[in-house]
Amino acid sequence: MQDNDTSPVTDGEIFSGHEGGKLSVAAARPISRLRDLSIAYTPGVAKVSRAIAEDASLAQRYTWADRLVVVVSDGTAVLGLGDIGASASLPVMEGKSVLFKTFGGLDSIPLVLDTTDVDEIVETLVRLRPSFGAVNLEDVAAPRCFELEDKLKEALDCPVMHDDQHGTAIVTLAALRGANLVLGRDIAQQRVVISGAGAAGVACAKILQEAGVADVTVLDSKGIIHTGRDGLNPIKEKLAAATNAAGLRGGLAEALRGADVFLGLSGSTIDESLLGSMADESIVFALSNPDPEVHPAVAAKYAAIVATGRSDFPNQINNVLAFPGVFRGALDAGARAITENMKLAAADAIVAVAQDDLGPDRIVPSPLDPRVAPEVAAAVAKAAVADGVTG
Amino acid sequence: MQDNDTSPVTDGEIFSGHEGGKLSVAAARPISRLRDLSIAYTPGVAKVSRAIAEDASLAQRYTWADRLVVVVSDGTAVLGLGDIGASASLPVMEGKSVLFKTFGGLDSIPLVLDTTDVDEIVETLVRLRPSFGAVNLEDVAAPRCFELEDKLKEALDCPVMHDDQHGTAIVTLAALRGANLVLGRDIAQQRVVISGAGAAGVACAKILQEAGVADVTVLDSKGIIHTGRDGLNPIKEKLAAATNAAGLRGGLAEALRGADVFLGLSGSTIDESLLGSMADESIVFALSNPDPEVHPAVAAKYAAIVATGRSDFPNQINNVLAFPGVFRGALDAGARAITENMKLAAADAIVAVAQDDLGPDRIVPSPLDPRVAPEVAAAVAKAAVADGVTG
Repeated sequence: MQDNDTSPVTDGEIFSGHEGGKLSVAAARPISRLRDLSIAYTPGVAKVSRAIAEDASLAQRYTWADRLVVVVSDGTAVLGLGDIGASASLPVMEGKSVLFKTFGGLDSIPLVLDTTDVDEIVETLVRLRPSFGAVNLEDVAAPRCFELEDKLKEALDCPVMHDDQHGTAIVTLAALRGANLVLGRDIAQQRVVISGAGAAGVACAKILQEAGVADVTVLDSKGIIHTGRDGLNPIKEKLAAATNAAGLRGGLAEALRGADVFLGLSGSTIDESLLGSMADESIVFALSNPDPEVHPAVAAKYAAIVATGRSDFPNQINNVLAFPGVFRGALDAGARAITENMKLAAADAIVAVAQDDLGPDRIVPSPLDPRVAPEVAAAVAKAAVADGVTG
Repeated sequence: MQDNDTSPVTDGEIFSGHEGGKLSVAAARPISRLRDLSIAYTPGVAKVSRAIAEDASLAQRYTWADRLVVVVSDGTAVLGLGDIGASASLPVMEGKSVLFKTFGGLDSIPLVLDTTDVDEIVETLVRLRPSFGAVNLEDVAAPRCFELEDKLKEALDCPVMHDDQHGTAIVTLAALRGANLVLGRDIAQQRVVISGAGAAGVACAKILQEAGVADVTVLDSKGIIHTGRDGLNPIKEKLAAATNAAGLRGGLAEALRGADVFLGLSGSTIDESLLGSMADESIVFALSNPDPEVHPAVAAKYAAIVATGRSDFPNQINNVLAFPGVFRGALDAGARAITENMKLAAADAIVAVAQDDLGPDRIVPSPLDPRVAPEVAAAVAKAAVADGVTG
């Protein structure tokens, strides 16, 4: 892969790269003869429809729906832009569909919704259920996104994943494992501080604990989340109960003192001096986009390993390492859900691809590495079978 | 176009032609460098989303939605198969999307719904409104389809057309004009008998009257629809008031005696002797699929011109002559609706393509004629502008 041009992308390039949208629908087989028309449309198609009416399982074989990922958003938490509405979120969803195809080989369409009501969104997708095979939920604001994902998983017998939560969690876990391999450290011994208790922060705390990190502390805009704080929403109450075993109180200064890992998912900035208060040879993941919490060159003064979400610095932690393979694996296996083990398996598979080539500036594979999605898919499919959620 | 193979299409060909479904989503531009990723996805896409958030009209230029046709069905009246449900209807909808792309150059996706409630279908599409640019309603049972189309047109500020009604009506009018050009007759002088008062029958009666046919009589399964009949639903009540000026009563025998045109849209069969009772040199369109009301060889004993819906006989009257161009023209013009004049213009454009090459076995162009959709689109766009429904 030649990737020599690292000059900043211009507005002209960006807008011309979106002209007319980024997706196109194609016929799997051309219609060039009357015979093709008689096969793909009337009268031939009637036999296929009749066959599916008699045996519903044949829809899997003779329609595209069973392997179609719908990328669903209400446009309430789009990138760093916030609640910009469904229509303005569509370029992001189209981009996601492009990546599903490019890396996962999966057909995908964006469905953006002109409602932010959780039950209405669920109801809409339940009604459309015969049209698709999996749901990638995207850019829905917290804490509504948690309720929405839970209700969708309950209502739909197919893979559902809110990528801002679990895609981010999977690649973050993979990156932390990669960093620890480089540094020869044990994830279980580390104290991790997560700045940001939105969709990504909550999911990262959860997956890191599942992966064996014993000490996780999460902060929101008001400071450390602990059981003594008033006015926590139910999600943060759970988080307070499950994290911060040391009972820390205060803000980032109190949280970061002596910490091994800083995980920035907040969209804010962090003062350089706080990084100096962390343990020696710390790990700093400043993942906010487009502006990391701290410039990686500054973070490198204190940390042994630095990562961001950006393609113009080393160690890009990008969800595209996870979601195409996760959905591909789930659909390949005929999974009815995406389990915690499937996510953990995805993270392990991402690390495994980078394993022979790890270094302080290479803790995860390149987002363009074509080996990643197939490896993730295979690992996810295997975990789905092991968890008994297939068939 | 080579089209020499007229042997019957086999089941093997049909099912292998549907393997994995008939549609595929493609990226409009490849993602092969990190730079492409930065343009199509983060961070570049944020600029496009922000631009649309500030000026909603830019969605038209920078997303695919504005020109995307959703093919919507609840699976209640699929081809000749009836109410087979959403999933079993999907192969038909995928076929439709293939034809939109092949002939109209329009991207299109099928959305099949697991509800038959009119208000729920409307509500679902209203919620999804930012995702698409036009609605092709398909295979919804009468009389519910009339209410559904009316409510959708009311609720959505974009082109909406129930193709089983209006696509059929447009091509039927085009075929009747073509037949009359061949026979040197005047449409206004003809007595037309329509067998079938479902979606297609009702719409054909309406467009033929708009086109100047003075005498239209419609029959349902109980016989001629007239103002004296009890138990008519509201649609048929309107039909009774607007048609059958002569006040005919009875069945097909009474209706066809001396009639100039028989239009079969009923899914039933017609007795040969009844065709003999029509006016000399009659016109018979036996459009039921897959089995015409009468075999064209039999009809030809009585009629000067015979047409069917099938590709294996001459004069195939197929909706594909209309819908790709109708939607293309409406979207090209930025139309907010599809008006009666747009439909009439479409029919005229279809005839115009065939005009230099008309004959008793060629009253409409071939469904594969690549000239048709662009001509229809241009005529429809022009009519949209004239009707003031654009912009």
